[in-house]
Amino acid sequence: MQSYKEMSAEELREERAFLLTKIEEFRAMNLSLDMTRGKPSPEQLSLSNDLFVGLENSGYKTEAGADVRNYGIPAGLPETREFFAKWLGTVPENIYVGNGSSLNLMFDALMRAVVFGEHDSEKPWGQIPGKKWLCPVPGYDRHFKVTEKLGFELIPVPLKEDGPDMDIVEELVKDPTVLGMWSVPCYSNPDGYVYSPEVCGRLARMKTAAPDFRIFWDNAYSVHHLYDDESKQGKLPDMLRLCAAAGNPSRVYEFASTSKITFAGAGISIIAMNKDNMEFATKILNVQTIGNNKINQYAHIRFLPDLDALKAHMKKHAAFLRPKFELTLDIMDRELADSGIAKWNKPLGGYFVSVFVYPGTATETVALCKELGVAFTPAGATYPYGKDPDDSNIRIAPSFPSLPDIEKAVEVFSVCAKLTAIEKILEA
Amino acid sequence: MQSYKEMSAEELREERAFLLTKIEEFRAMNLSLDMTRGKPSPEQLSLSNDLFVGLENSGYKTEAGADVRNYGIPAGLPETREFFAKWLGTVPENIYVGNGSSLNLMFDALMRAVVFGEHDSEKPWGQIPGKKWLCPVPGYDRHFKVTEKLGFELIPVPLKEDGPDMDIVEELVKDPTVLGMWSVPCYSNPDGYVYSPEVCGRLARMKTAAPDFRIFWDNAYSVHHLYDDESKQGKLPDMLRLCAAAGNPSRVYEFASTSKITFAGAGISIIAMNKDNMEFATKILNVQTIGNNKINQYAHIRFLPDLDALKAHMKKHAAFLRPKFELTLDIMDRELADSGIAKWNKPLGGYFVSVFVYPGTATETVALCKELGVAFTPAGATYPYGKDPDDSNIRIAPSFPSLPDIEKAVEVFSVCAKLTAIEKILEA
Repeated sequence: MQSYKEMSAEELREERAFLLTKIEEFRAMNLSLDMTRGKPSPEQLSLSNDLFVGLENSGYKTEAGADVRNYGIPAGLPETREFFAKWLGTVPENIYVGNGSSLNLMFDALMRAVVFGEHDSEKPWGQIPGKKWLCPVPGYDRHFKVTEKLGFELIPVPLKEDGPDMDIVEELVKDPTVLGMWSVPCYSNPDGYVYSPEVCGRLARMKTAAPDFRIFWDNAYSVHHLYDDESKQGKLPDMLRLCAAAGNPSRVYEFASTSKITFAGAGISIIAMNKDNMEFATKILNVQTIGNNKINQYAHIRFLPDLDALKAHMKKHAAFLRPKFELTLDIMDRELADSGIAKWNKPLGGYFVSVFVYPGTATETVALCKELGVAFTPAGATYPYGKDPDDSNIRIAPSFPSLPDIEKAVEVFSVCAKLTAIEKILEA
Repeated sequence: MQSYKEMSAEELREERAFLLTKIEEFRAMNLSLDMTRGKPSPEQLSLSNDLFVGLENSGYKTEAGADVRNYGIPAGLPETREFFAKWLGTVPENIYVGNGSSLNLMFDALMRAVVFGEHDSEKPWGQIPGKKWLCPVPGYDRHFKVTEKLGFELIPVPLKEDGPDMDIVEELVKDPTVLGMWSVPCYSNPDGYVYSPEVCGRLARMKTAAPDFRIFWDNAYSVHHLYDDESKQGKLPDMLRLCAAAGNPSRVYEFASTSKITFAGAGISIIAMNKDNMEFATKILNVQTIGNNKINQYAHIRFLPDLDALKAHMKKHAAFLRPKFELTLDIMDRELADSGIAKWNKPLGGYFVSVFVYPGTATETVALCKELGVAFTPAGATYPYGKDPDDSNIRIAPSFPSLPDIEKAVEVFSVCAKLTAIEKILEA
């Protein structure tokens, strides 16, 4: 097949006619497929079905002898803090263990900053008119919604293959009302990019006008590799240490959870922070709650006692996910690559494939897919306020559907993307 | 024994000498006893050891077929909402299910009000200078700390046997900066009082200057009866309906949890609210979190499927708690009643016995107990800012210690209370 750019109007009209017959074939199938959200599949969830087995005879005690069934130990079980510290390459003292949702920890951290400020703030962030937040794009819609809800102006920053465009970031943070930044540094949502050591270093070192600038560092997928080969696995530095070494010790809050390891929304989440942030935050957290679910922490540490167990468990997830990603990418290679109207990254981990269709056609492509019974995340969702200036990015979530469903859905997607592109090209 | 009031100075000095010999006897015992916090005992916690048994073969599905292991159903499982609705006498639509800590739901509700206001607010509460909160006293220290941390001025209101002094409450709410009130309406913490239907009605009906006045109605102990005889069990009306009937439908947020039913801090908590409050709150809650722990909801509903199961389970708790309460009260009857220097309620449920020792001696009594190795909640803790104007109230928590420990601890307490009272009387 030819690139559409090289086709004459006549050839494009022929191609359009062909695609329209495909569309009618799809329509006749009465499809009902959902590629919208990054949900684990039932098979993946079943990997953790035995999470609570034997708990009744376990004694419900920490190694140090504390009764996990009762109040106390508000920062989390020592064993759980140790586990996450090893995961993130930091020390257990930096880990506060929450409940199942790391998004909740992020929201609460921002609420604290809005109402109380940070330990190094001049005043509560709620009192800063025109406060702004940097949003690498495309990015995670639920991140953006948190800062939008809390009254920040969202400033998009282009995300490149090695992380956010640091030249632009370093310029933007000269504004004292720019207070922080979202990031999913390993297998970014949705592109699957991994921040390079250089970008991490620049983020740690950069001079910000706001003394209390914060990076929200979401390790959502940092152990969610598709391939066993370590050279194909994203790696991150210990960002807490990097920031400390750069003289900005309080700059970063790290987050992680087991939502896509054990049970979605019912796992363990953590926030990692340096000593000053920890002291300041726990003064509020210890008023907010009597403590988080230690029984669940206890069950998790029995089920996944160390990083080796975690790695072995993640390999089982990868065995389900890898064929789904490869199928998605293979079909796009087959159906979409030659046309030259779309581009995408081939991620090595995470939960998404991010496709940039022909500019100005993402909304139309998603709408056409929907008409044919195939649901994708709404176009624009990966941008602040749901507005993609190029109307180009579409997030594909291949984790949940079955292989046959993915095959059909991505075929439909490819045909729709090509058809809307042709319409656009012919219009011009 | 005589009442101290009727004793001559000579007799009091004799009594003091006797008590001092008792003190030395206690000191020689090198006691180490803790009566500080309302924690369930290990025996009580063991009642729920089987909470997760069989989960691995359960299918992890709701009755309607939803997979509880995955994302979704952010307001909570329908079965869980139904369970709590029956408990509180309301409808499932009014129930939002949180994680383990109802205090967390209270804190978050107040944070929402501070940052966003309520649906019927003129502005966010954070923008109201001198905002105030009513605190029935004695009350729960962790309630008070929440409103203190969020910048409310705490206004104490005397708690009577039938609830807060409503003549005073009705006066105070004429101030538009009085925005709400704490309450533990069934088995108040620490007195164990139950609000009467009349008080509940007046709370629902009273005219408040603030249009967005809120009552935080904490059902912490509303199924935590000590006696099986229903005439000895506290009962509450459906406060949501009562407020609606009085034309104040959004006035009340109700809270409940299974912290003292299954596992402390690792159970299920809920907030119950009317439609307008629910709509307003969930707009924020659905940004705050991806959802709460549905696996735990699912485990709980299998373990306690209905109110009959709940009642049967609570009877088992009562079997452990009743002897501890009766022993505490018996020893005080024996050691303290005749002296006439202290008074206390005999609670029919809850987790505490609240003692009013001779005015001006509570701090000294707790300090003397501590010196003898017996820890009580710090005097004053049951009042806003930790300041009991009469220095009289002491909270005794008999749930956790063993019967022999309680016996010794309450003997020590009684002797210390009498000794400090005598010193005070002789000083005068």
